Amino acid sequence: MRTQGATTAQLGERTAAPVRIALIGCGVVGGQVVRLLRAQADDLAARVGAPLQLEAIVVRDTARERGLGADQALVTSDAEKVVGSGDIDVVVELMGGIEPARTLLLQAMANGASVVTANKALLAADGPRLFDAAAERGVDFYFEASVAGAIPLLRPLRESLAGDTVRRVLGIVNGTCNFVLTRMDETGVELDVALAEATALGYAEADPTADISGADSAAKAAILASLAFHSRVTVDDVHCEGIEGVTAADVAVATEMGYVLKSLAICELADDGRSVGVRVHPAMIPRTHPLANVREAFNAVFVESDAAGSLMFYGQGAGGAPTASAVLGDLVAVARHRRTGSRGVGESSYAQLPVRPVGDAVTRYHIRLDVADRTGVLAQVAQVFAAHGVSIRVVRQEGHRDDASLVVITHPARDAALAAVVDELAALDIVRAVAGVVRVEGEDS
Amino acid sequence: MRTQGATTAQLGERTAAPVRIALIGCGVVGGQVVRLLRAQADDLAARVGAPLQLEAIVVRDTARERGLGADQALVTSDAEKVVGSGDIDVVVELMGGIEPARTLLLQAMANGASVVTANKALLAADGPRLFDAAAERGVDFYFEASVAGAIPLLRPLRESLAGDTVRRVLGIVNGTCNFVLTRMDETGVELDVALAEATALGYAEADPTADISGADSAAKAAILASLAFHSRVTVDDVHCEGIEGVTAADVAVATEMGYVLKSLAICELADDGRSVGVRVHPAMIPRTHPLANVREAFNAVFVESDAAGSLMFYGQGAGGAPTASAVLGDLVAVARHRRTGSRGVGESSYAQLPVRPVGDAVTRYHIRLDVADRTGVLAQVAQVFAAHGVSIRVVRQEGHRDDASLVVITHPARDAALAAVVDELAALDIVRAVAGVVRVEGEDS
Repeated sequence: MRTQGATTAQLGERTAAPVRIALIGCGVVGGQVVRLLRAQADDLAARVGAPLQLEAIVVRDTARERGLGADQALVTSDAEKVVGSGDIDVVVELMGGIEPARTLLLQAMANGASVVTANKALLAADGPRLFDAAAERGVDFYFEASVAGAIPLLRPLRESLAGDTVRRVLGIVNGTCNFVLTRMDETGVELDVALAEATALGYAEADPTADISGADSAAKAAILASLAFHSRVTVDDVHCEGIEGVTAADVAVATEMGYVLKSLAICELADDGRSVGVRVHPAMIPRTHPLANVREAFNAVFVESDAAGSLMFYGQGAGGAPTASAVLGDLVAVARHRRTGSRGVGESSYAQLPVRPVGDAVTRYHIRLDVADRTGVLAQVAQVFAAHGVSIRVVRQEGHRDDASLVVITHPARDAALAAVVDELAALDIVRAVAGVVRVEGEDS
Repeated sequence: MRTQGATTAQLGERTAAPVRIALIGCGVVGGQVVRLLRAQADDLAARVGAPLQLEAIVVRDTARERGLGADQALVTSDAEKVVGSGDIDVVVELMGGIEPARTLLLQAMANGASVVTANKALLAADGPRLFDAAAERGVDFYFEASVAGAIPLLRPLRESLAGDTVRRVLGIVNGTCNFVLTRMDETGVELDVALAEATALGYAEADPTADISGADSAAKAAILASLAFHSRVTVDDVHCEGIEGVTAADVAVATEMGYVLKSLAICELADDGRSVGVRVHPAMIPRTHPLANVREAFNAVFVESDAAGSLMFYGQGAGGAPTASAVLGDLVAVARHRRTGSRGVGESSYAQLPVRPVGDAVTRYHIRLDVADRTGVLAQVAQVFAAHGVSIRVVRQEGHRDDASLVVITHPARDAALAAVVDELAALDIVRAVAGVVRVEGEDS
């Protein structure tokens, strides 16, 4: 009995027609995919029930040495010919960017190929068009590696939670931001020092703008929201604030109050289930929250759903081998479907929920004010909150004379009301400066 | 374009033949499954492409009122008739225990039904027999809810990581133990006080022996090891130590040294990939480890794999609604396969790796000794470690006279060597008592 399964798999592996694969793009991730396809060939064949056969590797510069060994013979620069041939079962796209990737993938699907991609930019800009094309042609479209690298999210969100309703997703989805904020938290340095360290260690690109500004997280937030709410969300729907303005003082105050500062991607379903909100910004979370121990360049996605409650998925968000692991997982699933003539769960954007503006988000603010050391300051400040219907949870006065400061944490309120409070506080005579405004997330109401 | 997908799904839902479901067992989880099937009927039908139709609810006592509403009419006590009818597409088994569940599920599969189960005991005792039966009959066998409740593990381990090699799994898989240890950590109380609180709050059963002794975790460890290593591991293969002996002093010392005490299920692949080790015992992990912030009754599973690196999955390990969410996720997958005539990834126990004894595990010990306050104590103690080839990483002496104590943390060594060191230390004249021995996990070597 014990060996029967193995024997069947081995037989299947030998007799079944190979699943023919084309790889488009062969950089760091692509190189790891080629390596794993070779190193794990027997295990992969056993799991698929047929060998995985690499037929073509499409690159821009065919002359470049990529250490592909025998697979170097498969290298070509003619992407159109490969996707147009009709001889490919699965196209694995790792070139990135919107065009020509989109045209190539649509063409591949039109020719009956299934698609595995890690292309975050394309998914965030025009994912639903690809979902529709896959559904119309009856092929698979898998994209696990496009968000949070190696962390399995696609299957948990679209399969494991298929009988549940996701209410909220909180994600640490940018390794550069998280590395920088972890260093600031651990060592007390300012952002530029932490960023220089991240660059030196390879955790930040030479130009880290897309990471620090939140743009990278915004693209991932759009994909997460689409998955979580089965709705159509693109990167243009995402409210985005970067971490450029975070200071060592902000981090120190967070620590004093029992919080840690993180850059979060937040996707929320409105209470009535009829709209979604998607935002990226720095936020304080309690030190006891599971996301608080997500350190260095690691990513994590925290999910709140009706029946399952709180879930979290943690892992490496980038890097050649981790991303290749996610691509291989998709490839095995898609290849099995080809062999058995079936299809995986398609993406369903049937909800078509409107995206609400950030002003409608319900959140909490942490506000730090440099104030004049005068009697009645607190009363004046409290009056501003009251005028906008914002309730104060904690207030702390510190120092005196020129050093007097006031820290306020609010109860949940509409973001627009909180923003109005901040504007009005800044205009008060007794407020010398609004030194820090950070949203607070991850606390029970 | 936007609404086309929705329309197709709606059409499919109306015209496709329903997927016929029988529920065996209707306690807390079963009741939630019935509730969700009704509340989410439209969404589920859209995701499956056909309505899910509950045909029978098998219970022991048909007279008992279960608040099932209209579904009360489906209640029967004749399990054999239901699984033997051949009119059921999917059997959902929530009765628990090994018999008659095993016989019923084998019979259901023999009659062509797919199976979804939350039955941890059956999986841990005889899982491979059920995997084989499902493979032979070409039906699905899904069991996400059997380990760590709502946390998606099955798909990540057997699908997302299909192109990777899992090396190690560290799991907090018993909510009662974790609640008790969290309370001891937060409030400094002894185990019996924390356990009484757990019982009062419903986090511990009236007889908590199976939880506190590690037996429940051992069953889950066997399932996790089978999944992670594609091998055949049963509960009898698991080395198991409970938390009965953990004292407030152990917890306090862990805190002082920057650790937190957890009950862990540990599954390891040997470096050469040719054997596995599976053990359950209390262990110290660094406070900065992602598992350290898994608090109260939450569960989490930390996975180390070759390509993906470190991953963690966190969520509620028990409870009616969370477990029902996992059951529904499986049910949707299996129902889709029925509708499309396909199958999911079957369990593969092709590796058939031997299970090595706990003595061969490589780990670290934290040892606390009450010692005589005499010159030369440290030298004598160090000599015992050296004699067994165990290297010391940290040693700390504290107090004097009757209160003198010595805390030692070792470098990694074979568990058998570490156990021999402890035996020999206990026999030394100068050692009044070995007050605490706890393994240390989750640190880089």
